[in-house]
Order: sequence, then structure tokens, then C-alpha cells
Amino acid sequence: MVHPLNPAIAATFPPPVMEARRWLQGLTFSHERPLINVSQAAPVDSPPLALREALAEAAINDPQAHLYGPVLGMPELRAEIAVQWSQAYGGAIAPDQVAITQGCNQAFTAVMSTLAGAGDEVIVPTPWYFNHKMWLDMQGVRTVPLAAGDGLLPDPERAAALIGPRTRAIVLVSPNNPGGVEYPPALVAAFRDLCRAQGIALVLDETYRDFDSRHGLEIGGRPHELFSDPDWADVLVHLYSFSKAYRLTGHRVGAIVASAARLSEVEKFLDTVAICPSQLGQIGALWGMRNLAQWVAGERAEILDRRRAMVDGFSALEGWRLLGCGAYFAYVEHPFDAPSPEVARRLVREQAVLMLPGTMFQPDEHPEGARQFRIAFANADRKGIAEMFARLKSFSW
Amino acid sequence: MVHPLNPAIAATFPPPVMEARRWLQGLTFSHERPLINVSQAAPVDSPPLALREALAEAAINDPQAHLYGPVLGMPELRAEIAVQWSQAYGGAIAPDQVAITQGCNQAFTAVMSTLAGAGDEVIVPTPWYFNHKMWLDMQGVRTVPLAAGDGLLPDPERAAALIGPRTRAIVLVSPNNPGGVEYPPALVAAFRDLCRAQGIALVLDETYRDFDSRHGLEIGGRPHELFSDPDWADVLVHLYSFSKAYRLTGHRVGAIVASAARLSEVEKFLDTVAICPSQLGQIGALWGMRNLAQWVAGERAEILDRRRAMVDGFSALEGWRLLGCGAYFAYVEHPFDAPSPEVARRLVREQAVLMLPGTMFQPDEHPEGARQFRIAFANADRKGIAEMFARLKSFSW
Repeated sequence: MVHPLNPAIAATFPPPVMEARRWLQGLTFSHERPLINVSQAAPVDSPPLALREALAEAAINDPQAHLYGPVLGMPELRAEIAVQWSQAYGGAIAPDQVAITQGCNQAFTAVMSTLAGAGDEVIVPTPWYFNHKMWLDMQGVRTVPLAAGDGLLPDPERAAALIGPRTRAIVLVSPNNPGGVEYPPALVAAFRDLCRAQGIALVLDETYRDFDSRHGLEIGGRPHELFSDPDWADVLVHLYSFSKAYRLTGHRVGAIVASAARLSEVEKFLDTVAICPSQLGQIGALWGMRNLAQWVAGERAEILDRRRAMVDGFSALEGWRLLGCGAYFAYVEHPFDAPSPEVARRLVREQAVLMLPGTMFQPDEHPEGARQFRIAFANADRKGIAEMFARLKSFSW
Repeated sequence: MVHPLNPAIAATFPPPVMEARRWLQGLTFSHERPLINVSQAAPVDSPPLALREALAEAAINDPQAHLYGPVLGMPELRAEIAVQWSQAYGGAIAPDQVAITQGCNQAFTAVMSTLAGAGDEVIVPTPWYFNHKMWLDMQGVRTVPLAAGDGLLPDPERAAALIGPRTRAIVLVSPNNPGGVEYPPALVAAFRDLCRAQGIALVLDETYRDFDSRHGLEIGGRPHELFSDPDWADVLVHLYSFSKAYRLTGHRVGAIVASAARLSEVEKFLDTVAICPSQLGQIGALWGMRNLAQWVAGERAEILDRRRAMVDGFSALEGWRLLGCGAYFAYVEHPFDAPSPEVARRLVREQAVLMLPGTMFQPDEHPEGARQFRIAFANADRKGIAEMFARLKSFSW
């Protein structure tokens, strides 16, 4: 028994990714049939050697790498984001509208702390990213689920009906985690209009943007037109992660784009929770932005190829249904008459495939989670994906 | 105007260290009279070359350096802390009673989130560390000030009188920030007994422990006997930072020692706020623990020498009064008939000395902050300290 214990933290669930890691305890996997781990969105390989060398060089020779930096991040990185994204999104983003965080999860917690407190409400489409739900639980903020419609797309009209006097924001993730779906620009704009009309914030998490099939930002493709609105900062809060594009997960670097006034409030949160982001991580992110555009385009092509393998694989796999697929994730329905957490544990024991059950992405009261899985397919290559389908095919209940 | 805005975050003050940095804007300092910055507790020099080389080597060759790790930290680092501290403190600390965080500020926020929610109360001696106050404000937790008595020492009996039905913890920092005072073992034990009797937690922050004049842990000195109590985990939560001992501020690595059950709750917070600490930072901290004990002892000797220079300097400086001095900080009373924030700004403009006014460490309603300063003297060497005293001497109002 923990005592004293804040009931708000007791009320939320333990980290799903850590729970899934525990399912591996006591299991051994043979060299012939290694574990296929598609549970967490985490690049398997190291960043390119040149980036690693840039980190090593800074560790040895750059005194700034070991000192505190400004709370809102390294000025050069904030400025680089402002310049590159202004151009890419076709809008005007100033350096003081950019903040750097210790990863995109922290970006979310910092932003939400400025928006909502105990007793407030935030609307989040389902299936949702579990860490969003956990944070809101712990803060005493009520997460209002917005059930996704066809193709896992959230409906702005249904969202409008959920807005009440305590609603402070709507959170969208595009390309979606866990659904994989790329939200059409018109849909995102409709949510922006709704939020503006209601005086609430639109929080748009684009962690997986670089793997959007509509082209990545570095070659001019735009997932939406929100930043071309000169008044974007009065309603939009934008989140990004450097973890996936440059394979920097272990360095924890994310970003917030929002009004400078909101970032002054964010600064209070980040000062107490972080003091500053890892300096080496920021050096790596900046190096990546300046040198890896071409390389990221190659990564995207590779991941889009894996996506095709997923679509083909599920169309040939009897009983399973692909509900959404894109960027890092496939979101699927399984054919078994058993809840997904049980299926997941047998899948890892019998087939050495680890994926997260849909119950982790759905509210307790939504029964469909028991039929669903999220597959972080971008972690596996074409061969691995083919092997995964072979194992799913030979799996039965 | 920020809208919507969580009133709890609006209610707290902006980061004092960032405010002080802004006082430097537009000022230039000559080569002959450079800025003496004693505002933030931040080692000025880089970590030893061998540690930097270990970081560089890991950046190039260790794939783990770039991948997500477990939420509660790298198992080897948790185990190393358990072994070394069990021996040093004369108690039994298990690896699952250790968690790693992105710096000690984050350790505090994670722990307090498990202890107290909106409407609860936490007792903190004054002068206090401002980031503690900011976090509690943002969470809607009331910080109950415990005015320090003689020698800046908090009084357990006075603390007992402040405990009410919503009190969840008492927070002690020893050696103290900002006071510099090393709390005697009996005093810390008395607070432990009080907390245990009242069913609340004792949170003990030992960030500056390695510079304690009663010897650092690596050579067997103990600042208290709390861990020799076999039931320590039912009341004690211990915080530590790797930033000062190994000059790793820019890498953000801290630690929590607490019951495994409490760390399961901490894990929820850290999963949403951090996912994991910087892997390179953890590699650096582990390398430091395994290789730098002798070096840290030398650092302590150097800082204790600077402390003597501070004591001597203030005893010779007319009008100023040294209230506390130790580890990283001197806490002083100035002789001027003007509030400390005004004096601070004129000190930096006229004398190129930046220190933080006592108002940043005292509740708004405590007038003594206006007469006080915190000096992070460990940032300056003997020559710098002598120069600082020369400048203070020639400063008048």
C-alpha cells in the first residue's frame, strides 16, 4: 500500500508499453524465430553515422553540450524550425512561437497544463493515444471520447455536440496514433473552425508527419493549410517529435508551435519539469534538420513500401480486418472470440509477435477495443512483415 | 491574452532564472571586467575529458544510446545506485526502489504528483527553492511555508503545528538551496519521526550532497542515518541529481529512491512526461559513478575552499550579513534601503555581478526576501570570488 497517495494518479492505468514489456519476461526466442516486436513506435536502427559523429564531436568539443540551456530550448533550433516550417507549411511561424521539449509526450503535458485543470474537459477521438488519456486522468481533467466514424475519421459535427462549458480543447493526432489514418486537410480545417467558434484550442499532434503518404514537408507536401491562416496562433497548438524522423527516441526531443503568450505559460511548466531539454539531443535534432532532408525522404519511401506490404498482407489474411493504415501504424480487427489482451499474450508466447491490444486505446466502456490491435509496422522491414503474416496465418484460437 | 488558460498555471510566477537572464539583455561586459554569474547553480566547466569520451564512444557505437529505454531508467544505473548508496548510507536500498528521471526537478514533480493533488497541502521551509513552489502552485497544491529559525534551520515542532488534515508531505533540501545549510542528522531524523507519526511523507532532496562538508558519500561520510532504518521506505522519498557532481546539467539526469510501490505510481507520471530519461545522460551518470569518486572528492575539496573564501569575504564586508553558507550557496542579507530585485538589477548593470534576490525564495507575504540574496558561489573560483567581493565593496546605493 502506498500512503499517502494522490487519488488522481491512482485512478489512471499503468503504462501499457511497460505492461507489454512484462509479457516478455520469462520467454526466450530462438535465433530461427526471433521476436517480432511491433508494440512500440520506435526505430530499431541507430541514426545515420554522420549524425552520431556530430553528437560525438559535440560531446567532446562543445562546452554548451553539458551546460543548462534556455528553458524553451536552444535558440538556433527554435529559429531553424521557424524558418523551415514557415516555408513548408506556407505560413508565418516566428522563433518565439517555437519551444523545444524533452520529447513530444512532454510537449503534450506542457500544453495541456496551460489549457485545462481539474474539472475541465478535453475531447479526444477514439481510438486514442493512451499517454494522452493517462496525463489527463492524473490532472483530474475529464477526457471526453469522440468515437471515430468511417475510416477511423473523427466527425466535427459529433465533436460539436460534445462541447460543454468546461471544454478547453480538442486533440487531433494526424497521421493518427494508433489508427494510422491521415486526416484530410478539409477535416482538420473544419475542426479548427469549430474550435475557433467555440473559443477552445485545437491541439494537433503531427509526430508521424514525416511518413505521411501525401509527401513530407521537406519536399513541399502539406498535410493541412492551418498555418497559412495569419491568425493561426489564436486557436492552434502544434506538436512535433524528432524521435521518428531522425531515430532520436533515446534523446527525447520534441517541439511545440503556439502563440508566444501561451509559450510563456509553457515555460513555467517546463522550468519545473525539465529546466531545459537535453542539449546533445537538441544538437542532434538541429543537425538532422540541416543535413537529413534527403535521407528522411528515403525513410519515408521505405515506410510507405512497408505500408503497402501491410495492406496486401491483411487483404490476404482471412478473418482479420484492416481498419486504418499509414505512417507508423496499422489498426486492425482480429477474428477470434476472445478479448485482445488474451490474444496478445498468446500471440507472443506461441508466435513470438508482440503487438498492443485495442483495449489500451479505447475507453473502458467501449467494447470494440477487445477486438482490435495496433501494429507498429514501421519497426519491421518487408521480410519481417512477411514473416509476421506467416505467423498470424498459422495462429488460431 | 492567452485563451483558454488554466488559472492554476496563470497563478504561479515565471521562472526566476529566466527572468534573471533577461536582466542581461542589452548589457555588454568588457574583457577586463567580465560578468560574474552566480545566479544559477551550474558548473561552468565541462565534465572530465574521459567522461566526454565515454559519451562520444556511446554515441557512435552503442545502439542503446539512441533507443527508448525503460520508463524508470536504465537497469544498470538503478542497480549501481542501489549498491553504492546502500553501502554509503548504511542501509538496504534495492534496485526496484530506484528510479531515474530527466533531472532532479522532474524527480520532484513526479514524486509530488503521487503524493498531493489539488486542495492538498505540502509544508516547505523558507527560504525555499522556487521551482518547488511553482510546481505545487500549478497543481493546485497549497505550499505551507515553515519559516526557518536560527541558522536557517527548520523546527520540527513548528512544522508539527502546521500539519492539518490535507497535509501530505514535508519537503527538506539538505544541503539547502538556497540557504546552503547542512541539516544535522538529528534534525532530519526528527522530521522523519514527525512525518511517520502523522502518516505523511518526508521528501528529502540531496542534490548538493556531494559537496557536504561532512564528507561525501564516496568516502564514507553520511549526512543522515535515515536509510539505516529498515522501514525507511514507508515514509522517506529521497531525491538526487547527477548534474552537479559530474557537471552533467545539460544532460538532465536525476534519481528518486522510494518504495517500489510508490515508484509504480511514479512510472505513470514519467511515462507521460518523459517516456524515458536521456540514454546518453544515463550512460554518462553510470560512467561517473563507476569512475569519478576520486575526482568528485577533489571537486568537493575545491568547493569547500571556495566556501571558506565566502565566509572570510563576508566577515570583512561591511553591512552585509551571511545567513547561511555551504555546498553551492551563500544566502545573505544586504545593507541597502532598497528591495533586493532593484539592488540585483543595479548590481548587474554597475558591477557586472548577477545574483538572485531573496524575493524569489520567499513567499510574497514574507518581507525579509527584499533584504536577501542567494549567491551560487560554487560557480566561481577563488579569484572570481575575490573579484566579486571587490565589486560588492565598491557598490553603494
